[in-house]
Amino acid sequence: MNQTFSRRCKKPMAIFCSAALLLSTFAFPATADEGMWTYFNLPTKQLKEKYGFEATQEWLDHLRLASVRFNDGGSGSFISPSLVITNHHVASGQLQKISTPKKDYLKDGFLAKNQNEEIKCPDLELNVLVSMEDVTARINGAAKPEMKPEEAAAAQQAEIAAIQKESTEKTGLRSDVVSFYQGSEQWLYRYKKYTDVRIVFAPEKQAAFFGGDPDNFTFPRFDMDVTIMRVYENGKPVASQHYLKWNSNSAKDGDLVFVSGHPGSTERNITMAEIEYQRDVLYPNILKYLKRQLAVLNDYAKLGQEQKRQADEEIFGLENSQKAYIGQYQGLLDKNLIAKKQQEENELRAKVDAKPEWKQAYGSAWGEIAQAQAEIGKMGKQSFFRGIRRSKLLSLASLVNRYVREIKKPDAQRASGFRESEIESTKLQLFSPAPIYPQLEERVIASNLELALEELGPDDVFVKTVLEGKTPADFAKDLVAGTKLADPAYRKSLADGGEEAVSNSNDTMIALIKKLQPLQREVAMKVAPLQGQIAAADEKIGEARFAVYGRSQYPDANFTLRLSYGTVKGYPMNGTIAPSRTTFYGLYDRVHSFGNKEPFNTPQRFLDRVSKLNLSTPLNFVTTNDIIGGNSGSPVVNRNGEFVGIVFDGNIESLIGNFIYDEAANRTVAVHSAGIMEAMRKLYDANALADEIEGKMAKSAMR
Amino acid sequence: MNQTFSRRCKKPMAIFCSAALLLSTFAFPATADEGMWTYFNLPTKQLKEKYGFEATQEWLDHLRLASVRFNDGGSGSFISPSLVITNHHVASGQLQKISTPKKDYLKDGFLAKNQNEEIKCPDLELNVLVSMEDVTARINGAAKPEMKPEEAAAAQQAEIAAIQKESTEKTGLRSDVVSFYQGSEQWLYRYKKYTDVRIVFAPEKQAAFFGGDPDNFTFPRFDMDVTIMRVYENGKPVASQHYLKWNSNSAKDGDLVFVSGHPGSTERNITMAEIEYQRDVLYPNILKYLKRQLAVLNDYAKLGQEQKRQADEEIFGLENSQKAYIGQYQGLLDKNLIAKKQQEENELRAKVDAKPEWKQAYGSAWGEIAQAQAEIGKMGKQSFFRGIRRSKLLSLASLVNRYVREIKKPDAQRASGFRESEIESTKLQLFSPAPIYPQLEERVIASNLELALEELGPDDVFVKTVLEGKTPADFAKDLVAGTKLADPAYRKSLADGGEEAVSNSNDTMIALIKKLQPLQREVAMKVAPLQGQIAAADEKIGEARFAVYGRSQYPDANFTLRLSYGTVKGYPMNGTIAPSRTTFYGLYDRVHSFGNKEPFNTPQRFLDRVSKLNLSTPLNFVTTNDIIGGNSGSPVVNRNGEFVGIVFDGNIESLIGNFIYDEAANRTVAVHSAGIMEAMRKLYDANALADEIEGKMAKSAMR
Repeated sequence: MNQTFSRRCKKPMAIFCSAALLLSTFAFPATADEGMWTYFNLPTKQLKEKYGFEATQEWLDHLRLASVRFNDGGSGSFISPSLVITNHHVASGQLQKISTPKKDYLKDGFLAKNQNEEIKCPDLELNVLVSMEDVTARINGAAKPEMKPEEAAAAQQAEIAAIQKESTEKTGLRSDVVSFYQGSEQWLYRYKKYTDVRIVFAPEKQAAFFGGDPDNFTFPRFDMDVTIMRVYENGKPVASQHYLKWNSNSAKDGDLVFVSGHPGSTERNITMAEIEYQRDVLYPNILKYLKRQLAVLNDYAKLGQEQKRQADEEIFGLENSQKAYIGQYQGLLDKNLIAKKQQEENELRAKVDAKPEWKQAYGSAWGEIAQAQAEIGKMGKQSFFRGIRRSKLLSLASLVNRYVREIKKPDAQRASGFRESEIESTKLQLFSPAPIYPQLEERVIASNLELALEELGPDDVFVKTVLEGKTPADFAKDLVAGTKLADPAYRKSLADGGEEAVSNSNDTMIALIKKLQPLQREVAMKVAPLQGQIAAADEKIGEARFAVYGRSQYPDANFTLRLSYGTVKGYPMNGTIAPSRTTFYGLYDRVHSFGNKEPFNTPQRFLDRVSKLNLSTPLNFVTTNDIIGGNSGSPVVNRNGEFVGIVFDGNIESLIGNFIYDEAANRTVAVHSAGIMEAMRKLYDANALADEIEGKMAKSAMR
Repeated sequence: MNQTFSRRCKKPMAIFCSAALLLSTFAFPATADEGMWTYFNLPTKQLKEKYGFEATQEWLDHLRLASVRFNDGGSGSFISPSLVITNHHVASGQLQKISTPKKDYLKDGFLAKNQNEEIKCPDLELNVLVSMEDVTARINGAAKPEMKPEEAAAAQQAEIAAIQKESTEKTGLRSDVVSFYQGSEQWLYRYKKYTDVRIVFAPEKQAAFFGGDPDNFTFPRFDMDVTIMRVYENGKPVASQHYLKWNSNSAKDGDLVFVSGHPGSTERNITMAEIEYQRDVLYPNILKYLKRQLAVLNDYAKLGQEQKRQADEEIFGLENSQKAYIGQYQGLLDKNLIAKKQQEENELRAKVDAKPEWKQAYGSAWGEIAQAQAEIGKMGKQSFFRGIRRSKLLSLASLVNRYVREIKKPDAQRASGFRESEIESTKLQLFSPAPIYPQLEERVIASNLELALEELGPDDVFVKTVLEGKTPADFAKDLVAGTKLADPAYRKSLADGGEEAVSNSNDTMIALIKKLQPLQREVAMKVAPLQGQIAAADEKIGEARFAVYGRSQYPDANFTLRLSYGTVKGYPMNGTIAPSRTTFYGLYDRVHSFGNKEPFNTPQRFLDRVSKLNLSTPLNFVTTNDIIGGNSGSPVVNRNGEFVGIVFDGNIESLIGNFIYDEAANRTVAVHSAGIMEAMRKLYDANALADEIEGKMAKSAMR
């Protein structure tokens, strides 16, 4: 299960976008199958030399235009003119939002018998990358020599807004200016945007997520982690020319394969000082938070079937995060891996120091980062625990408050996410009809404040300001009781009423936001200059890296479309070898080995229909492709650009991939196309849909 | 796959019985399911408290008398009045010895259709422990106060020989005096001995050892690692009353189970100085040796099908050893485990130092060991590489040479293994008709000498004395060409001719033994006093441990019968959970995941007959029982003393068990009784044998 939840800095409620996370710089020279490559700078030489493969422009364009970004964090692809496939765990947020106490689509799965039965996702936005344009010169040009630094930065921000607005007006496409290589390059990415997306097929969660949290981030795996949706425009299915031809007979051991998807973020190039800060300060805090939050939600889920249903998605997300962070933390504690990072840093520094002009320009950067990072480290507890995370109501309060402030500004001055070119996507979140559960909210808020109380003490200014003498539980109860933000209509009225409406509102959540603002500003005043110092030093190191290693590099991930290449290949595991694939036999072994007990239980249909299956059909497989959270749902394609599988996870050894790629054991985990077909046809009676996907429409009746 | 080959210090050709291996002392107080308990001192209290289980004397006697020791290293049990079950890899030596270039029983398996077809093992001895008698007082009494230490030791040795001889003459039983608790206790163990043992059923090696070296020492596993033999006396099947009732419906998750078998040796109580010596000196040498030897044998096996057949058993043994030593070495390098050992030592030393009389008596022991161990460490290369290991011819030369020297002495003065009470077992080895392959011998000998040359240099006295200017290859060729020891009749003639015949022999192997003797004596003169110093200090520590922790302990393993208790239980593995059992489904998953490629191929019958099987039948399972090499083939029994499985391995986390037991992940791996029955009946058409085992004789015709 990939770390959609833990790494998506694009997601409004992403919880751990620490300072360090925002400071990534340049990549080391790529070796092995390493690299999440942009479509504008592909490793054509490596591909030719290592695999004898030459990607034509047509091949690349087709794959790019068939690749889909799920804006709430994940990837997918067109597998027919209108059908898009992604992971069940990418679609699960939508599946939960369309569920009710009476009908649980997440748990029970769904198959639309015909197009009329397809169910619309409440707030999903899909993007297809239509074009990429280098706008570095134009943005750099906006900063004139006579300007002061702040003026120059503001002028550049205005230019970015202008570019985006211009492009949106001209093309009607979503237009984002995106920064690569620590800002050395700025690109205008234009996306075709789809918001009418309907669920066609989803298996039971237990088929998709067989093995649950224990098996998450591991291999061998046996998961049917897929959901199929149909994309509509103007009430009709779209008819994209660019879709991937399905191939059930590929992805064999040793095959070259590609992954085209949207890795969320990596930190492959941070300094040792930043790594040590994460290891010694940030990660222990994160893990403490996750442990507490999970305990609270699990208690809530025990109250009853309906509470379990409400909390399940959040629990899944937190467990997923926890396992990812533990894996990364283990990696950070691994002396060999850290020694490798240290060696890389030493090499670069030695090369910089060896040339006087490099030493003069860049040599001091590492020390500057170390000094600032140490200062930030001292405030580690405060900056981490002064906050309330994962409350949906509070996030909405914050969003509506920012919305009314930003929307009245000229487009060029608005913050990211609120520009004209981006505002539709933000509104989709802000006015989403997705249900919110007050009791669950109460508990989430209370547990945040209990932890703050424990970690910071009752005299901490944040704790005092928020609680005003109440217990966390009482405070949370009053807070949730006094808000109407769960109602999309109320949010609409505030948004439409502007700053005045928000200012006059007596909503408790809005009031809390206002109360917290001065505190947040205070922390920001302290931390911002240090972050600035790190950012500036990091930029120097980025330049140094370019100077030393040249341009055969890939930039850190930033939730833009990337291409990675690799091989279907097993790896050393548990004292033996993991094969490159699993089969249905293995699923049934694990089911019966655990006596069909949760989370190793399988849906009844799997038990009833076992004799129909060809049990040696490949189910999941692993490849050496370099991916990370956000790649969930990415298609795996072969040399012919055909769909041969779908990424849904990385193995436990891949978790340190946030910091370093190790081909020996880092593996992408995917569902095999053959396994999907076998299940659809023999377990789910989804022959018509399977025929549509395999292009057998002529032979079978339309669904 | 258990470490039969790597740990059996009882085996004449055991290769790494280092000084340290002989010096084990007392055990730490047992916690958890830890302990390989002697039948004369069982953890009745723990069993009652933790499991509510009370073993009656009848229960214990029955289990003891159904337990069988395989004298070439391994365990087994009676499962009918005459049938004994053990592991395929315990029986494999015999299977190879009965094989010929035309008929490979090891590879192809065997099923006797009736008793006439059963094949006799050429040199197998089975022992059943009939009685245990504490003879400590009698042996201690042999040492009189007026004697000098050497005189006292000789008197005690004579007493041991006398006890054994007396007992043999009186009872006709094999009678061994065995030392426990660092010599604090001496016991007379009497064994019923069987030498007419015939193969009834063995599956193909690929069914027994599916997954080969990669899967060895790991779990999940899918191995049918069993062989069934029938025990004869006076030409007729024996009719033991004590056999284990077969139960195919037990060994369920969470069940209490017992293992009754013969762990070879452990070093749970050595000091940190001894551990560090093993980690820093001994293990690197061992691993270097194994790597070289394996390369040589694999080269030989590549020469052709027949060469492969000849070398296969030896390769298997070496790979098994290599994996075991690597696992142990990793454990020794594990800072957490070593810290735990250090803490145990610190605790004991602190308790000793806290009491003046203890400090006076024992306090200096650790320092004495450290000092002597450091001296031994300095000679580490010489003592390890001055030797030729794993040549069968040279071992026989050494054995015949010792035999003629010892046999003429009075019984009381003979070395261990040559006393009247033991001589039959030794003769079985000495006159074994098992084939010896000269080309293989040549290569083994040459590779030993090449390694010695590399490690010690051409001027080393051992290298010079042996080679006398020849190359290792030429020397080995001449050596093997000039010996007749491959012929059992020639060995018989030398043994019968006594010292004179050996002395007059111009056999090259005998000559080499004579040439090596002065060199060996020289090394012994240097090392023996240091080993003596360690032994004396170790005895003090043993006494200290008794003084501090009392007698609720188990002694280190010494290839005598032990009982261990535990639970059928999975464990954390590979970032997830390993179940407590596997099924036939899992076997087929691994076969098809690897495309049925060696070593993950399965015999054709498994593919042809898959539809006959109930695939959810348990195949292998894991328990928390504390075992080690030599336990291979031990029965796993339930509360009712029924046969529910057979031990064949420990998982990778159990390898450090030589030094420390860790219940979190240390697991015994066993074949499930249900899986054996399913395979015998549905894959091997062995219904008659299965009926005999399940006691269904009346219903089915006699085989």
